[in-house]
Amino acid sequence: MAMTLEQLNATSESHAAEMLDGLYEHSPWIAQAALAARPFRSLSHLKHEMVKVLQDAGVEAQVSLIRAHPELAGKAMVSNTLTAESTNEQSKAGLTQCTPAEFAHIQKLNTDYNGKFGFPFVLAVRGPRGTGLNKQQIIETFERRFANPVDYERDECIRNIHRIVEIRLNDKFGVEPTLGNDVWDWQEKLAQHSDPGYAEYGQLTVTYLTDAHRACAQRISHWMRDCGFDDIEIDAVGNVVGRYRAISTDTATAQGRPKQGAAPSGGSAAHEVASVGVKTLLTGSHYDTVRNGGKYDGRLGIFVPMACVRELHRQNKRLPFHIEVVAFAEEEGQRYKATFLGSGALTGHFDKSWLDQEDGDGITMRAAMQHAGLCIDDIAKLKRDPAKYLGFIEVHIEQGPVLNELDIPLGIVTSINGGRRFQCEVMAMASHAGTTPMNRRRDAAAAAAELLLYVEQRSAKDGDSVGTVGMLNVPNGSINVVPGACKFSLDLRAPNDAQRDALVDDVLDQLKRICLRRSVSFTVEETMRAAAAPSDSEWQLRWEKAVDALGVPQYRMPSGAGHDAMKLHEIMPQAMLFVRGLNAGISHNPLESTTSDDMQLAVEATTHLIYQLADELT
Amino acid sequence: MAMTLEQLNATSESHAAEMLDGLYEHSPWIAQAALAARPFRSLSHLKHEMVKVLQDAGVEAQVSLIRAHPELAGKAMVSNTLTAESTNEQSKAGLTQCTPAEFAHIQKLNTDYNGKFGFPFVLAVRGPRGTGLNKQQIIETFERRFANPVDYERDECIRNIHRIVEIRLNDKFGVEPTLGNDVWDWQEKLAQHSDPGYAEYGQLTVTYLTDAHRACAQRISHWMRDCGFDDIEIDAVGNVVGRYRAISTDTATAQGRPKQGAAPSGGSAAHEVASVGVKTLLTGSHYDTVRNGGKYDGRLGIFVPMACVRELHRQNKRLPFHIEVVAFAEEEGQRYKATFLGSGALTGHFDKSWLDQEDGDGITMRAAMQHAGLCIDDIAKLKRDPAKYLGFIEVHIEQGPVLNELDIPLGIVTSINGGRRFQCEVMAMASHAGTTPMNRRRDAAAAAAELLLYVEQRSAKDGDSVGTVGMLNVPNGSINVVPGACKFSLDLRAPNDAQRDALVDDVLDQLKRICLRRSVSFTVEETMRAAAAPSDSEWQLRWEKAVDALGVPQYRMPSGAGHDAMKLHEIMPQAMLFVRGLNAGISHNPLESTTSDDMQLAVEATTHLIYQLADELT
Repeated sequence: MAMTLEQLNATSESHAAEMLDGLYEHSPWIAQAALAARPFRSLSHLKHEMVKVLQDAGVEAQVSLIRAHPELAGKAMVSNTLTAESTNEQSKAGLTQCTPAEFAHIQKLNTDYNGKFGFPFVLAVRGPRGTGLNKQQIIETFERRFANPVDYERDECIRNIHRIVEIRLNDKFGVEPTLGNDVWDWQEKLAQHSDPGYAEYGQLTVTYLTDAHRACAQRISHWMRDCGFDDIEIDAVGNVVGRYRAISTDTATAQGRPKQGAAPSGGSAAHEVASVGVKTLLTGSHYDTVRNGGKYDGRLGIFVPMACVRELHRQNKRLPFHIEVVAFAEEEGQRYKATFLGSGALTGHFDKSWLDQEDGDGITMRAAMQHAGLCIDDIAKLKRDPAKYLGFIEVHIEQGPVLNELDIPLGIVTSINGGRRFQCEVMAMASHAGTTPMNRRRDAAAAAAELLLYVEQRSAKDGDSVGTVGMLNVPNGSINVVPGACKFSLDLRAPNDAQRDALVDDVLDQLKRICLRRSVSFTVEETMRAAAAPSDSEWQLRWEKAVDALGVPQYRMPSGAGHDAMKLHEIMPQAMLFVRGLNAGISHNPLESTTSDDMQLAVEATTHLIYQLADELT
Repeated sequence: MAMTLEQLNATSESHAAEMLDGLYEHSPWIAQAALAARPFRSLSHLKHEMVKVLQDAGVEAQVSLIRAHPELAGKAMVSNTLTAESTNEQSKAGLTQCTPAEFAHIQKLNTDYNGKFGFPFVLAVRGPRGTGLNKQQIIETFERRFANPVDYERDECIRNIHRIVEIRLNDKFGVEPTLGNDVWDWQEKLAQHSDPGYAEYGQLTVTYLTDAHRACAQRISHWMRDCGFDDIEIDAVGNVVGRYRAISTDTATAQGRPKQGAAPSGGSAAHEVASVGVKTLLTGSHYDTVRNGGKYDGRLGIFVPMACVRELHRQNKRLPFHIEVVAFAEEEGQRYKATFLGSGALTGHFDKSWLDQEDGDGITMRAAMQHAGLCIDDIAKLKRDPAKYLGFIEVHIEQGPVLNELDIPLGIVTSINGGRRFQCEVMAMASHAGTTPMNRRRDAAAAAAELLLYVEQRSAKDGDSVGTVGMLNVPNGSINVVPGACKFSLDLRAPNDAQRDALVDDVLDQLKRICLRRSVSFTVEETMRAAAAPSDSEWQLRWEKAVDALGVPQYRMPSGAGHDAMKLHEIMPQAMLFVRGLNAGISHNPLESTTSDDMQLAVEATTHLIYQLADELT
C-alpha cells in the first residue's frame, strides 16, 4: 500500500519519520531532519531537503553514512549489517550469479578500494533507469571510480546514496517516472543506429546523412506520428519537423493556471486548421552525435517535447499556439565543417559553399544530400519568419559537472556563453637538451606552458569565464631536444561578448609578453568567434516558474557549450533548460548519462511551460 | 709578401698597427687595442685578444662596428663606403651574378632587416671553409637570421665580423688551415652517403648497417690506408679500426718536449712489430648519424686523429705507443634501440638481446648484421683489455651554444654529464571546455605545464644542471575538451650523479605535489640512467696544456651530451676536447657547422697531446 505526499505532510512528526524509515542506510536522522521543511510540494522537494541535510552535516557524517553501507556483493550477502533493501537491490543487479573469478575480482576491488579511500564502495546498482545495472557495468564502474581522487569519490558515493534513496522513495510512494522512462527508452533505441567503424565496437557515432543518420530520422519521424503530431516531414537539410496544431484562436478559452496534467483548453479533438495569426512555439535539438559520443546530447531535447505532445494528444488537448518540434540533422560539425547546419537552415544561414566540402572519403556534401534524396533547391525555403513564432526553447543535458556536484536535477540557463577559438604556435630554437645551458635556451614548450597557466588563472578570475588549452603538442618532439616549436589551441568563453573579448585581449597580450621575454615568436589564428546568446528574460522566467512549480530549486547558470538555441537566438527569443548529467557531467563520451527521474522532471517542466504559455495567450 | 707573427711581435706599436690595418671595417682601434697583449703566441692568440677588446667595448661600440659594414650585395657594389676587402669577399660569394628578382629579394631583406634590427646584415660570405657561400646559402641564412631576436642577432653579426677578420688575418699572414681543410673535406665527402628517403632531399641520415652506412665504413677504411695506418679492419659490429704501430719501446729515445711538427722519435721508418708492454692510445668517435643530422657530429672525432696519423706517417714518425683510431659504427640508437653499440662492443657491453630487435621494416639486427657480412660470433672478442691501453681521447663538436657565444674555438671537457630520462603521463578528467567551470577542472595539461616550468627553474638553480621536457602531447586533444591526459618526457642531467639524483628527486617530488593538489594521477617510467663520466684529471690536463700551447684560452666545460667516451670511461681513463659549433651550436640538424680553422686547431691540439704523451713515455 503506497503512501502519499499528502499523508506525509499531514501526519505527526514521529509518524512521518516512521513513514520515511529505511531510506538512508541505518541513518534515519537524515529524513527526520528534512521533515522540518514540511509541507513538501513534491517528492523532488523532499529529496532536495534531504540532500541539503547531508550537505550541512559535514564530511564526517557523510563518511559515517558511507561506512553504514555494506560492501558490494558476495561478502554483503552474508553480512548481518545488510538491510533488506540492499539485498533486494544487489540481487536485482545479478551479482548473486557471480563466477568464482568474478567474485574474487570484486573482493579484490573491495579491499583495494577500502585501502585507498577508507570507506566502502557505494553504487546505486539499480542504475539511471532503475532497472538494474548488469555485472559488467558494475565492475567497470568500480574499476573506473577506483581511480578517482578521495574527495571526489566521497562525493560520488554520497550522490549514489541519494540516488538509491530516490528509487526507494519512488517505491515507497508508488510513483514511477513513466514519461522519463519513455524518453530514456527512445534514446536507448535511437542509439542502436551508429556509423560503420563505431557500431562494431558498440560505440555511438551518427554523422550527417550516413545510413545510421537517415535511419535515426526515419525512427524519429515514426515516433512523432505515434505521438500524434499532425504534420511530420524530413526537410531539405534532413531536419525532422513535427507540428502539433493549435486550436483555432477563437475557440481557445481562458481557464486560469491548470494543474499538472489538467487540460488547458476546451479539449477539442478535431485537428483544426491553424488560423491566420496563431503563432508557433518552436523547440527541439539535434540528433547527430560526435564520434563515440553519448546518447543524450541533443536527443534529450527532441524526445522531451515529443513526450509532452504525446500527453497533450492522449488527453485530446489543443493549445492556442502550434508546437513545432525540430530534430536538427546536424549540430556537431563532424562529417563536414558545417556546425549548426540544421538550425542554421531555419535562420537562413545555410552556406552554399558547404555543398562542395568533402568528407574523409571524398564525398561532397552535395552528393551526400542527393544520395539522401534531399532537395537542395528547397533549403532557402526553410528560413523561418520570426513574426510567426513565439520563441524557441531547448532542453539539453548539461554536459558539465555543476548540477551533478550540487545534486540539483535541473538548471535554468541564463546565457549561452560567447566564445572565441584560436590555433597558436610558438616558434623558438630547437637545441640539444644536454648541451644547451638553461640560461641559453629558447624553449617553445616552456612559453606555451606559461601561457597555459595564465589562461587557467585569468579565466578563473572572472568566475564565470572559461579558458582551455585543449590541444598541446610539440611537433616531432624528442626526449633530448629542447622544443623548437609548440602548437596549442585556445578556447575562451564568457557569458557576454565584452567579458569574452577582455579575456581574449588579456590572454593574447600575455602571450606576446611571454614570447618577448623568452625571445621566441608566435602565430595566432582565430578559427571561431561566436557571440554570446543571453536568454530572453520572459522565457527564462517561464522556465524558472516551471522548475519552481516542481519543488525543485531554481538554479541559474550559463551554458558553456554552444547549442542550436544560439542559432535561433539570432531571429527569435530563446531560453534553455538543463538536465543534470551523471559521471561529473561528462559528455561527448559513452559515459554520458542521466536518470529517467531527471528526464521525467524535464518533461514536467516543459509541460508546465507550455501550459503557462497557453494561459498567457488565452 | 706575407708578414710573420715574429715581425708583428718585434716591431713598433705604430708599425704593428699598420700591419693589422683593414681587419675590422673602418675600425682600426680594435687591432690597436689588442696590441697591448703582445707578444702573441699564435694568430689564435691575436684573434682572441681582438675578440676580448670588442667584448669589453660594449654594445654601442659593437653596433657602430656592425653599422660600419656595407649592406649585402647590389647596393654595396656602388657604395663608396665599401672597402676593397668587402668587394673581394662579396664577389667570391657570386652575389654579383644575381638575377633582377634575386637582387630585389635581397634589397627587400636588407630593408626589412634594417627596419627590425637597426643595423645592416653582416655575414662572413666566405663561409666556414673560406671558399665562399653560394647565393642560395646566403639568401637562406639571411632569411633564417631575420627571425632572430635583436640581442642574439647583434651577437651573431659580431661573430661573423670576427670570422671575416680571421680569414683576412690568414690572408695577411699567408697561412691556411690545410689540415683543417682536409678534415672538412673528408666530412663533406662522407656526407654524400645517406639513407634512402633522406638522400633524395639532400638530407644526411646514416643509420646502422644501411647501404650508406656500409659505404661510409668502406670510405673511412680506404682513407685510413691512404693516411698510412698499418692495420685497418672492419670489426664484428661494423666499427672501422685503424692501428698506427709504435716503434718498439727499446728504440724510442727521449727528446724533451718537441715543437709542433717536430719529430718526437728517432724517425724509424720501419713498421716494427709492437713489443710486449707497448700500450695503445685509443681515440675515435662514431660515423652513424641521427635522421637529417649534421656532418660533424661524431665524424670530426674520427678524421682529426686520422689527420694526425697521416702527418706522423708523412714525417716517418713512430711513437712509443700504438695509436688506435676507431670509427664507431653506432652511437645514436636510430635504427635499433641500441645506443653506443659500437663503443659498447669494446667494453664488453654488447647486449645479445638486441639481435632480435626489429627496425621499422621488420628487419632484425641479426639479419642486418648477416647481410653486412659481420661475424656475430666474434663480437665478444672485441672487448678490450684495459691493461693494454693508455686511455681514450675523443674530439667532438660541442653540440651546444657555449663556445660559439664566447667566441672561443676549443673547450676542455671536465665531465660528461650523467642523465636520467623518464616518460611520464598525467591522467586527469577529460571534460567539456565550455561547461566545466575553472574551479571544477582536473586538467592534465595544466599539471604538466606546471611541472615543465618547475623543471626549468629547478635546473637553472644548479647552474650546470639541465632539465628538458622535449616531448609534450595531449593525446587526441580537441580544442573544446579539457585535457584528460598529457604525456611528456623528462631529461635531467648534471655533471655528477649526486647532483643529478637530487635534481630528479626534486622534480618527481614536485610532480607528486602538483598532481595531489590538482587531484590528478600520474605515471613515471624511467627509460634511461647514465652515470656521469668525469674526465680523468691527467688526461684533462694534457688537453689543457695542448690548448694553451696553441695560444687559445683554456675553457673548461661539462659535456651535456652523451658520447662514446662515456662507454670507454667504464674501463679506462678518458678526456674529451670540444670544438665550437656555429649557428648557436645547433646539432642533430643540417645547420650544424664549424670552420676549417677550428678543425685545424683540433688537429694541432691532438697532435700536441700525442707528443706530450710521447715525451712522458720516453
